[in-house]
Amino acid sequence: MSFVSFVSSGPGDPELLTVKAVKRLEAADVILFDDLSSGPILSHAREDADLIGVGKRAGRPSPSQDHVSRLLVDHAKTGMKVVRLKSGDGGIFGRLEEEITALNDAGIDFEIIPGVTSASAAAAAAGIPLTRRGTARRLQFVTGHDLTGELPDGLDLQALADPGATTVVYMGKRTFSKMVGKLKEFGLSGETPTLLAEAVSTPDQKLSRMPLDALIEKLTSETSTTPALILYGPLAAEGP
Amino acid sequence: MSFVSFVSSGPGDPELLTVKAVKRLEAADVILFDDLSSGPILSHAREDADLIGVGKRAGRPSPSQDHVSRLLVDHAKTGMKVVRLKSGDGGIFGRLEEEITALNDAGIDFEIIPGVTSASAAAAAAGIPLTRRGTARRLQFVTGHDLTGELPDGLDLQALADPGATTVVYMGKRTFSKMVGKLKEFGLSGETPTLLAEAVSTPDQKLSRMPLDALIEKLTSETSTTPALILYGPLAAEGP
Repeated sequence: MSFVSFVSSGPGDPELLTVKAVKRLEAADVILFDDLSSGPILSHAREDADLIGVGKRAGRPSPSQDHVSRLLVDHAKTGMKVVRLKSGDGGIFGRLEEEITALNDAGIDFEIIPGVTSASAAAAAAGIPLTRRGTARRLQFVTGHDLTGELPDGLDLQALADPGATTVVYMGKRTFSKMVGKLKEFGLSGETPTLLAEAVSTPDQKLSRMPLDALIEKLTSETSTTPALILYGPLAAEGP
Repeated sequence: MSFVSFVSSGPGDPELLTVKAVKRLEAADVILFDDLSSGPILSHAREDADLIGVGKRAGRPSPSQDHVSRLLVDHAKTGMKVVRLKSGDGGIFGRLEEEITALNDAGIDFEIIPGVTSASAAAAAAGIPLTRRGTARRLQFVTGHDLTGELPDGLDLQALADPGATTVVYMGKRTFSKMVGKLKEFGLSGETPTLLAEAVSTPDQKLSRMPLDALIEKLTSETSTTPALILYGPLAAEGP
């Protein structure tokens, strides 16, 4: 029987894998992984498991999504236990749907193991909640880049400029200045508190808090490609 | 040394605890838990650990938040290893801040262990992602009830009526009709696909998909108090 487990790896710390994710990794014959979720997490794999890297890496041509879907289908068809490892929670900006569609087209069953999304891990590391009665009533996630690496079209700018929400931008370091330029037209203040969370839950984790305008300046003068998320809203100013 | 671990328990399935959460539960001298996260999850506690239920239960008077914060501080001061268990991801509608403030006021250190939020588990169970390029660019979470159990004031209705987002309403079964009444004024269609996810990831899990208007009708004629979340947006129509 052909079957694929989509396994969410969490933000990076192998202890933030779920118990179920660990079980699936231990049982897998084949693991297709993205670069971001590699390293210590793969130590749960059996010694004789096939580990296949299919991730996108900054500055390098990456396998096309079609190619990844084909690899997934081909391996599943052999009847081996296939795990498709996705960083964070696979359902959140994990490009899960393209791969699900390919499996459906090939008549292959699958399951999804949910995981800890990076926003939850970043807030936890910063000692803050993501929501607060009254002043951070709504929590919203967007991604800062589309298929070509640019800011996605059609973002609801008014919603993203709401000062009564916590907003988390995934993979947004490079396009954040452009997005903020648009959000300021909808009233977002340059004094809005922000949290820049880099390499969350890994030994290289770095958290920086500053007002929005200072963050824009910092990002403009930086070229680091460390994976990062940006959180803004009233709660970004809190924490120890 | 006084110390509290806020431990996110995930949506209910004990296998959706993180490895780190299991370790903290196994080491705890005292565990303060909400009703929602009890049961199999507490089987990770030591036999001699103190288990203290402090949760709110439908139809029963619940301990006030002040009382919970005081219990937390008092236990931490004894120097015992205290775990405060929170269902889902504690940072998302978990009322974490009141308890953090109490610890800060008492000079007690803490850590937050992030977890799998119920929205991720509901989508995974339904076989769908929470985001999709182009048609579900933004993911947003709100809660359907404030301190008094009513719909919170000041929700950004325009953002919540956006047809290009996935919206998840936590604890919203009772107030959903009222919220939708307001959202329709901002253009939300009665044909919007919805997913009602009850008792997610537990043996009683129930998933129902239907258009928005049909869900309103169903909720009006029901009195079930099973914990539930409501997801609406284009992705709610997908899945096997």
